Formats: sequence, C-alpha cells, structure tokens
Amino acid sequence: MKEKIFEKKIGVVGGGQLGRMLGEAASPLGVEILVMDPTPNCPAYPPASDQIVNGFNNKDGYYEIAEKTDILTYEIETADPDILEEVYNKTNIPVHPSPNTLRITQDKLIEKNTLKDNDIPVPNFKSVDNEDDLLEAFDDLGSPVMLKARKGGYDGRGNARIRSVNEAKDEFGSLDNMIAEELIDFERELSVIGVKGKDNIMTFPVGENIHKKEILRETIVPARTGESVRELAVDISDQVLDVVEGRGVYGIELFETSEQKILVNEIAPRPHNSGHYTIEGNITSQFEQHVRAILGLPLGATNLRQITVIGNILGDVEQSKKANLRGVEDILNMPSIKLHWYGKKEVRPLRKMGHITSIGKNKENTIRKIRKAKKLLTFQDE
Amino acid sequence: MKEKIFEKKIGVVGGGQLGRMLGEAASPLGVEILVMDPTPNCPAYPPASDQIVNGFNNKDGYYEIAEKTDILTYEIETADPDILEEVYNKTNIPVHPSPNTLRITQDKLIEKNTLKDNDIPVPNFKSVDNEDDLLEAFDDLGSPVMLKARKGGYDGRGNARIRSVNEAKDEFGSLDNMIAEELIDFERELSVIGVKGKDNIMTFPVGENIHKKEILRETIVPARTGESVRELAVDISDQVLDVVEGRGVYGIELFETSEQKILVNEIAPRPHNSGHYTIEGNITSQFEQHVRAILGLPLGATNLRQITVIGNILGDVEQSKKANLRGVEDILNMPSIKLHWYGKKEVRPLRKMGHITSIGKNKENTIRKIRKAKKLLTFQDE
Repeated sequence: MKEKIFEKKIGVVGGGQLGRMLGEAASPLGVEILVMDPTPNCPAYPPASDQIVNGFNNKDGYYEIAEKTDILTYEIETADPDILEEVYNKTNIPVHPSPNTLRITQDKLIEKNTLKDNDIPVPNFKSVDNEDDLLEAFDDLGSPVMLKARKGGYDGRGNARIRSVNEAKDEFGSLDNMIAEELIDFERELSVIGVKGKDNIMTFPVGENIHKKEILRETIVPARTGESVRELAVDISDQVLDVVEGRGVYGIELFETSEQKILVNEIAPRPHNSGHYTIEGNITSQFEQHVRAILGLPLGATNLRQITVIGNILGDVEQSKKANLRGVEDILNMPSIKLHWYGKKEVRPLRKMGHITSIGKNKENTIRKIRKAKKLLTFQDE
Repeated sequence: MKEKIFEKKIGVVGGGQLGRMLGEAASPLGVEILVMDPTPNCPAYPPASDQIVNGFNNKDGYYEIAEKTDILTYEIETADPDILEEVYNKTNIPVHPSPNTLRITQDKLIEKNTLKDNDIPVPNFKSVDNEDDLLEAFDDLGSPVMLKARKGGYDGRGNARIRSVNEAKDEFGSLDNMIAEELIDFERELSVIGVKGKDNIMTFPVGENIHKKEILRETIVPARTGESVRELAVDISDQVLDVVEGRGVYGIELFETSEQKILVNEIAPRPHNSGHYTIEGNITSQFEQHVRAILGLPLGATNLRQITVIGNILGDVEQSKKANLRGVEDILNMPSIKLHWYGKKEVRPLRKMGHITSIGKNKENTIRKIRKAKKLLTFQDE
C-alpha cells in the first residue's frame, strides 16, 4: 500500500463527546484529530492533538483547521455546510460526509422530501408555515400531529405533540418553517449505524432505543424484535446509505410500527449516540469506522461480539451547576460496567454527560445491570 | 462517593507506547494524563494532555510533573526511583507502584533475591562480578548459563547464553554486575498481568508468549496449557503481588518447565506488552486497570471475553529509517483485526512499532489470522 495513514490528520468541526470518542478511536490507528469548537477546553480536547476555538458560523476557524489537516469532517449538525463547501472549493481539502448531505439533514422538511423522493418510507408529513397549513395538516395527518421546527432542534427540543393552532402558538410562537408529521403508533424505536466507505456500505446490528422526553436513555443491541423486522431495518438503512452523499458513519433513526413496518425518522450524518455500544460491542467501533471511512481505508467488521446495552448519564439536576457525579465508585465496583465520561465541567438539566456500557450473555440481565448502575449515579447534592 | 475522579490528573514518567495506551484508556474515565519523556512528541503525546520534555535522571521534570498532577506513576524501568522517592517525600504526591518496587525490579539480582526470600520459585541463579564467579556459576548451574546484566537490559538486550569466560568477555566486555541463571528447559513462556488495588489483588487470564531473539512476538490467551498449570501460574502471581509494594498493574513473566512447574522470570512494575490483549479481550484493559488501581478506585472485571491473540509489529529493517509501514490497508481489510500503532516516526531494527489484535472462537484460526496479517506488514521498501 502506498498511503501513509499514520501521518494523516483529521479536522473535526465540533468538539463534543462525539469528537472526544472519535479522538480516542483515532489514536490506535495512528491518526490525529484536531477539533474546532467555540468552547475552550471542549470535551474532545485533550484526546484531540489541538483545538481551534472558533464559532460555527465564523469562516476563519474552518480555513485554519483545513490548513492544518488532510481531511475535514463534522460531529455536530450546527456545522455550516456553505462554509464547508467554500473551504473545500478553495483549499481542495475533502469534506466527508458531503456538505450537501449536512445541508439536507439540517432541514427536516428537505430531509423527509429527499427520502420520500427516493421511495424510502417515512411518516406522512406536511410543510407548515402558517395557521392554514397546520389546519390542513390536522385534516391530512390526524390530530395530534408531531410538529417540529425544520431546523435547529435536537434531543427533542423543537418538537411537540400539537392538537390545535393555539397549542402550537403557545409552544412555538411563530408557525414559520415547521414540519408536521403524522403521529406514529410505533412498537419500538430502532436505529442502525451505517457506514459509507470508499467502495462499499456496511451496517452495524440494529439497536433498540428507549427514549424518555425524546432524549435517548438506553440502547439495547440486538433490538428485541423479530428477525424479519431487523432485516427490513437493515434493508431500508442500505437504501438510505445509497441516497446520502459522502463517506462516513451515519446514524439512522427508525420507527417500527405496530404493523411491523419500518419508517425512517431521522438521519444524522455522523456517529450517533445510539451507536456508542459499538465501542465494546464490536471490534471496530462506529468511531474507528468513521475514521476508516473518511480516510478511504477499508471498513472494519460490524458483527456484534456480545449482547451490549448502553445507558446515558444525563444531568438529573434542576439548574446548571458544576458537574460532580456521585456514585462512580459504586458503578466501577460492578463487574463488566464500562464508564465513558465526556469531560463536561458543567451539568445542565438532561445534558448528556457520559454513558455506561454493559455486556453480557443474557439480555434482560444486562439491561437490569445498566438500570441498576444508572440509579447509583447522580449529580444531585447529598 | 466523595472523590471527584474526573478532576484527577496522572503524571506518567515515560511517554512510550505504554503511556500512549494509558492515555487512551484514561480518557473514557475522564482522567487526564501528563507525560514526562526526553523525546519531544513522544508516542504518548497527543493522547496525553501535555508533555514535559525531560531526561529520566534530571530532577526538574519530576518536580514539574508532580506539581501539575495528583499522582505519579511510571511506564518505563529507567525512571529514577531515588528521584521519585525524593519527590514524594518533598511534595507528598503519591507514587504508584512504590519507588522501592521499581528499585528492586531494576536490578535482576535484587529482584531474584527478593522473590527467593519470599519462597517464590525462580530459576537457580548466582551473582557474577568476575571470572571466578562465572566459573563457579558453571559448576553450580551447568553450562551454558543465561548471563544477564543486572541492570538496564530490556527486550533481551544484555542477555546471552554463555558457555565460557571468553564467550562472556566477547559478549559483555566486563563481567561486573552480572547475574548468571540456570538455563531453563521450558515448555512455554507464560505471563500473568496482575493488579494490586486499594483493597484487593486481581489477575487477568494467563497468556502464552512466543518470543524470538528474546523479543515478544505473540501472546495467545488463554495459554495453550493445562488447567492445573494455569492455576499454578495464577497462584504464584498472587504471591508475587503480595511481595511487591504499591498499587498498580504488574507484568509477571513466567516459565512453564517441562515438569509443569512454574518459575518466575521477571516482574515489570507497569502494564506489560503481553497484556495488550486485554484491550479487546477484556471489558477492563490492563491500562484502565492501572488507572483504577493507582487512583484507589475499585478494580474492573478481569474475565476474558473471547480468545484473543496479539502480534507485535517490529522493525523489520537493517538500519534505522523513517517509519513507513506498508500493508496497512491489507490488514484493515481482514475482518476482526485491530491495529494499534504507537506513533513512532522512526523504525529501528526490532523496535516495537505497534501491535495487532485478533479475537475469535477458535484458537488456531485466530493465531493463523494474526500470523497472516503480520506477514502483510513491512517497513521495507518495495
């Protein structure tokens, strides 16, 4: 082989926990990452070799990181696709996944239209920009609808079940730039971590996601559903991977309906919270896979080693404060619990602060262990 | 729990691959490491949050790293135990394992005497400081003997099979400060990674080591030996862990003799090359275990997840040169091969440049896969 992978540096726009775990995974491959993030000492730094402190809509930092690295990627959807495209055009430093994919997934309406245009099943939806649109949506989609801001929402922020125009106004103020979706009577929420490499696409095993208040709490792998549903989920994920542009890892969120159908809910053009199980569950994690993919290296195996369950460590506080997690010694005392702490100094209500992983032979026991461990962890004062 | 582990920083004397993998393992725990090493941009940096460039016999750097961290450890035997002891006495920053253990293991004669005094089986040995001593050694231990420099040898450097005084002089020049050991007719070389925590000791599964020219080539876990031999190896390792002072991970090298006896060959007061399998083979690696142990946190589980084999990537060159490893894409194409590259810019004859790991259900297949992969990797020019 000609390519010297060991001298490659990856520039990562965003320096949160995904960047941190990307750095942890890149190091054994001999690949360095540099991150660009507005928050000094962001979670991804120190695993990164350097940080450029720069806001996501300030071009300077994008050019600076492009100058210092061989390839750009992003770990946050607030990265600016227009700037990324401009930087690529001017510097010729590749960006993966493609800025256009980022642009599409940043806008829930464009995302859904793109999927629909490619015959990928999605919940029925309707563009909403005013009261009349919303009233039509109730007619077309039933009531309540799931009303979402087209842009900027994450972890359920900017989403609400809405039954009336008044409810919508109370929740969102303006009705501009929204999308209404039919409320899916889903049996389960699933997700597939897919990867698009230089020559091929691959998928990791289907995970089952437990959300509460629309924030991911647990991922259970393999998902507790039938083989045919899992196959369908993979088939549809393969279709999604055909549609998106650019190499890299994608998180594909799915609904399994009560009729065992699979609908695509959302696509994240980056490693995904529901894929953290791959660190212990697979020989190649989603993070290593992302590094391999964007560098154009062969993809790693995606088969599951053991039943794997993760639980998110969320801020269980009423108000922001200095993060002091209690119960750590207790969970480190539990066999086969692995802790991933994201290094955030401040805990906020429901902020993702870390996660724990457990592996096992018996799924219910492994789930129980994660739940037991999560109960021991708290940011609240004694 | 009261202790805030997430604000802990570990100072590591030495910044080679062990420091690098220590940093990779510390990050998910939210623990930062700083390294002290004479080589700028040593392998452990960037995973470390900072490096102090300092020679191992220069006190300044030890004081500087102690000032910036909460606890000191070392990953190289050339760390200076006297300076570490002085720094501890003056700064009260704990050092684990204890400098005295380092002092003992730095001198093969003192090490062997310590083990013998504690009724731990070792090969017969004799102190050698001159020709008469060596002649006596031939009488007592037979010929050839394994003659070793008491201090400073590593990876077989400073060791030789010796049959005569002339041979010894040719090999070593002076006969001062040597130890002669009986040549063991061993069936296998084994090793146990042990850990001494705050409240308990634990051992990882017994590994089988394949050496060539006294440099480790492969570790196969579990070792291909009988259950009773494995139990004996663990028993004796437990005894060793009782003797050594200070918390941390220890690499315990053993001989399995042709009569299924176990003799201790050497102790390394640090994570050990033969323990790299634990990164993929165990939920808690030897590196995470070392972090847990020195910080006084509970130790993690040590049970093996799957058959695991590692192969070292050594410099297959005649002369030092810029490291350019070829064959990487080929091995990344092999399912379930994990690469660990140490980031060394220069390859030297037989220098440890990285390692590869494979996991599997069938031991012989897993060994074959590692050997196949190793054959694909070379630093030689086309």
